[in-house]
Amino acid sequence: MNLYSGHINRLIDELAALPGIGNKTAQRLAFYIIGMSEERARKLSDSIIQAKMNVHYCRLCQNLTDSDICPICSDEKRDHGTIMVVENPRDLAAYEKTGKYEGVYHVLHGAISPMLGIGPSDIRLKELLVRLQSEKVEEVIIATNSSLEGETTAMYISKLIKPAGIKVTRIASGVPVGGDLEYIDEVTLLRALEGRTQL
Amino acid sequence: MNLYSGHINRLIDELAALPGIGNKTAQRLAFYIIGMSEERARKLSDSIIQAKMNVHYCRLCQNLTDSDICPICSDEKRDHGTIMVVENPRDLAAYEKTGKYEGVYHVLHGAISPMLGIGPSDIRLKELLVRLQSEKVEEVIIATNSSLEGETTAMYISKLIKPAGIKVTRIASGVPVGGDLEYIDEVTLLRALEGRTQL
Repeated sequence: MNLYSGHINRLIDELAALPGIGNKTAQRLAFYIIGMSEERARKLSDSIIQAKMNVHYCRLCQNLTDSDICPICSDEKRDHGTIMVVENPRDLAAYEKTGKYEGVYHVLHGAISPMLGIGPSDIRLKELLVRLQSEKVEEVIIATNSSLEGETTAMYISKLIKPAGIKVTRIASGVPVGGDLEYIDEVTLLRALEGRTQL
Repeated sequence: MNLYSGHINRLIDELAALPGIGNKTAQRLAFYIIGMSEERARKLSDSIIQAKMNVHYCRLCQNLTDSDICPICSDEKRDHGTIMVVENPRDLAAYEKTGKYEGVYHVLHGAISPMLGIGPSDIRLKELLVRLQSEKVEEVIIATNSSLEGETTAMYISKLIKPAGIKVTRIASGVPVGGDLEYIDEVTLLRALEGRTQL
């Protein structure tokens, strides 16, 4: 169906290829972009290229950054003896927003998933091991997601680094704050029971 | 909060400024874009600029097109004596997808809305009047939305061009095909009753 012109179709196709953007949304965005001022369209287009070309992984924690070492890793006020392992930069951002975590991070960029064929060598695990050898690390907090893949990854990392005598912990799993027990799934309820702490 | 680097933040801001894209989605898209191949990022960036620079309104029907006159207006097999008036190119696309409409279109790029301060001179109505004077038009089918603005626009156009002796019609409003009466709002039910046809 050739309803729109070549340039519009091309833009719709490019937008629809983005995750979570369906064909209808891509159409709406394309028409919005065509209706924008030339300056705004240039800024949008340019920000894509600039981000793609200038952003890379931090040499230490593998988080995305403009510089060689990210602001968190180069912050001397933070506790470099505690490393929180997360699956992706969005998870890091979630913990940073709490404003209470003082340590540093390590971003895996994925999780081990035998189902999807993602093995330990497909995520940035080697880089973590290099850090553990060269830096003086006291604790590794594994904050991968509470999903099958996240748990698998947590177990794998734990078995890998525990023998080296490093303290390995896992963030707690249980009923979310404000959560109503009635609406919480059974697995979470059992997990909350197992992880009960003394008052 | 400066969680991400300058280039990532800029890209997130640009994406979040698009309609229907919230901050979370913008973050997800930005990380996806940064993870794309350079070639794909360039294609996306380029398609925005190309669409913005090369797409303009068809000289006749005001639909978006790459050329001076759009493919529908330059198609001699279509009935140029029947003009369907729609609010925007997506509505035109919706009718084109039916594959049954043989006439041509006129795209208003909006609807009259006193609430939003959009008057008749803010939509492409003048261009329709020029067409009606220069072309031999038998029927104008008003297919604006069945909203307050759409109805207002339909009434306005009808009053404006009826005196010139041109047949003006409005697409039917009623219960959608497959619609369950139980779940249809009262206004639509009354509209369907008023518009009843003899069997």
